[in-house]
Amino acid sequence: MQFTINRNGFIAELNNVLRAVASKTTLEILTNLKLEATERQLVLTGSNSDITIQSTIAVDAGQAGLVIEEPGAILLPARFFADIIKKLPADTVTLAVKTGFLATITSGAAEFKINGQDAVNYPNLPEVEGDQSVQVAPDLLREVIEQTRIAVSKQESRPILTGIHVLLTGTQLTAIATDSHRLAQRKVDLLAPVEVPADVVIPGASLTELARMIADQKDPLDLLIAENQVLFKFGHTLFYSRLLEGKYPDTSRLIPESSDTSLEMDANELLAAIGRASLLSHQGRTNVIKLSLTPEDNGAKLSGTSADVGVVEEDLHFDQVSGQDLEISFNPDYMSDALKSFGGAKVRLAFTSALRPFTLVPVEDQENFVQLITPVRTF
Amino acid sequence: MQFTINRNGFIAELNNVLRAVASKTTLEILTNLKLEATERQLVLTGSNSDITIQSTIAVDAGQAGLVIEEPGAILLPARFFADIIKKLPADTVTLAVKTGFLATITSGAAEFKINGQDAVNYPNLPEVEGDQSVQVAPDLLREVIEQTRIAVSKQESRPILTGIHVLLTGTQLTAIATDSHRLAQRKVDLLAPVEVPADVVIPGASLTELARMIADQKDPLDLLIAENQVLFKFGHTLFYSRLLEGKYPDTSRLIPESSDTSLEMDANELLAAIGRASLLSHQGRTNVIKLSLTPEDNGAKLSGTSADVGVVEEDLHFDQVSGQDLEISFNPDYMSDALKSFGGAKVRLAFTSALRPFTLVPVEDQENFVQLITPVRTF
Repeated sequence: MQFTINRNGFIAELNNVLRAVASKTTLEILTNLKLEATERQLVLTGSNSDITIQSTIAVDAGQAGLVIEEPGAILLPARFFADIIKKLPADTVTLAVKTGFLATITSGAAEFKINGQDAVNYPNLPEVEGDQSVQVAPDLLREVIEQTRIAVSKQESRPILTGIHVLLTGTQLTAIATDSHRLAQRKVDLLAPVEVPADVVIPGASLTELARMIADQKDPLDLLIAENQVLFKFGHTLFYSRLLEGKYPDTSRLIPESSDTSLEMDANELLAAIGRASLLSHQGRTNVIKLSLTPEDNGAKLSGTSADVGVVEEDLHFDQVSGQDLEISFNPDYMSDALKSFGGAKVRLAFTSALRPFTLVPVEDQENFVQLITPVRTF
Repeated sequence: MQFTINRNGFIAELNNVLRAVASKTTLEILTNLKLEATERQLVLTGSNSDITIQSTIAVDAGQAGLVIEEPGAILLPARFFADIIKKLPADTVTLAVKTGFLATITSGAAEFKINGQDAVNYPNLPEVEGDQSVQVAPDLLREVIEQTRIAVSKQESRPILTGIHVLLTGTQLTAIATDSHRLAQRKVDLLAPVEVPADVVIPGASLTELARMIADQKDPLDLLIAENQVLFKFGHTLFYSRLLEGKYPDTSRLIPESSDTSLEMDANELLAAIGRASLLSHQGRTNVIKLSLTPEDNGAKLSGTSADVGVVEEDLHFDQVSGQDLEISFNPDYMSDALKSFGGAKVRLAFTSALRPFTLVPVEDQENFVQLITPVRTF
């Protein structure tokens, strides 16, 4: 095996594949990167068994400057190999494996010889012969992930809640996440209708990693779903994630359909006020702040208290407040997470009572996006 | 006590004083910030007992927009208070203490009430009635600190070595640090001769913090030395540090006066090569790399080995190599630290033998700056 490649382009591809390689893993073999050179292309594969990322560099891809002198395959310690490539002195790098699994990496006057392993030991890629391929715009997919991942559970006690529930029906993708204290639900349009409806739970960590990877993508992604895997195709990259097993709880009846009190205001202004109130609540044992709404007097006040440290009170600048008087207490961090997902839009908060979950929706699009938060009982 | 001030300017001063406030401290009172308003000025003081920083804002300092409505003093929890000021909504902030030690902080529609303490409980400032005041240029002082602090010991076993030895004689300031494996020594000119020579040991951590604080300073600093304190005055800030007690070891005879082998090359090129070689040495149990010099063949080779992982070898691009053949092994991290302190200049390495300390000096100024490193025995 021997190839020469432009170092900067190679580093970019290594960084992509490295996203899947865990620094800690129970499977030692997965600390490696698989490099596979054929006549026409170099394929890099990294995996942590939850996520597998495969990147293909073609010999005719101008920028990569890839020249394959001899096909072959090898496993090399992923992070260590990437560190070497990043520190090499010259613009190009040559990797050669002549005898056994000793890889010689040459660049300028520097020569590394590092021990690799036989590529046949690396696990096979998941098989995703999807029933259908769905296309989705990368910016929209990122938005869906960013808006729902905040509500994904961090507790392993109910593993299914560490995933995002993804439903494909007609021309719609619906994503739902809940940690049982809060819920996020977002609906977006697909670029074409799906043939067969799908209902899967994708690990939140996988989608978070995917969102980071597609930040610069312009072209639509292909989404393929198989028995226990989902595959996203974009550029020259394949991104596999395992699916979570089990049934996601029915969340359709959690979102209240009516409200008794509502408040409309700028999401960022409310976010800043919550940030101030939480300075106090973070000092106390119970991380709770209070919102007091008195629509008759046109009043909306936020307050936080910590017995030892002090109190904070602030009159909110709202656009509209209506309905019945209400005092409601909640975790300010949940509220901050939710408010950040509105990207500075006007937001509508709708309440039924002090102990029932309340909702946040964008004033301009109240149907397709909702954040729900369960209040905290303080009396 | 009551004053109003521009929030942004106030934040800058708070950040400065906060550098002295430790998040963990054995003295609870030092988690506070002291605010003292007189008719003409507001004085902020923070301390961790090693370092004390005091900043004075005058009512006539235009940008600060300080208005003192009622003189007085209070202690407030330093980081919590700064967090509040940073998150306030309006351009100005008013702090009022009307009864007891309850401080009311108002900005826009937000009002915080936080519990403070009586200012009389705060420790008094160190007394520095220095025999003499020495002036030194801020950029030169930063350079001295940056170049010597790398050799300061991190071990508390010999406390005196956690300081930088500072000598003032004639028009010269000499700074020396050693952790007994390496040594850094730098001499710079003062702006005027000192009347009485001084010989003190200043904690490395204090000087590191000072170097950060004076990054934007243009005017000379005043340096005052007292029995067990040193005071740096700059802008409207006083920076006190305690001095270390005890006698600093005599380092004058550690620096070899002659050499048998020498190498001259670009510091940054050598730094990059050391970085590559250390990729291997960091994988092994002994963090050591080897430099092989063969002046007769015009050869200079760097190598690193880790039995498990592999080897690296690199021919160096040097300007000059002369003297006797030499193989010498050393800790690459010490070498990297030393090389970074030369700011990309040409550097001259001078060796006597494989087991004797070797030196690095800038080719252009071989008298005033030296880094010394003790090699590692590998045979």
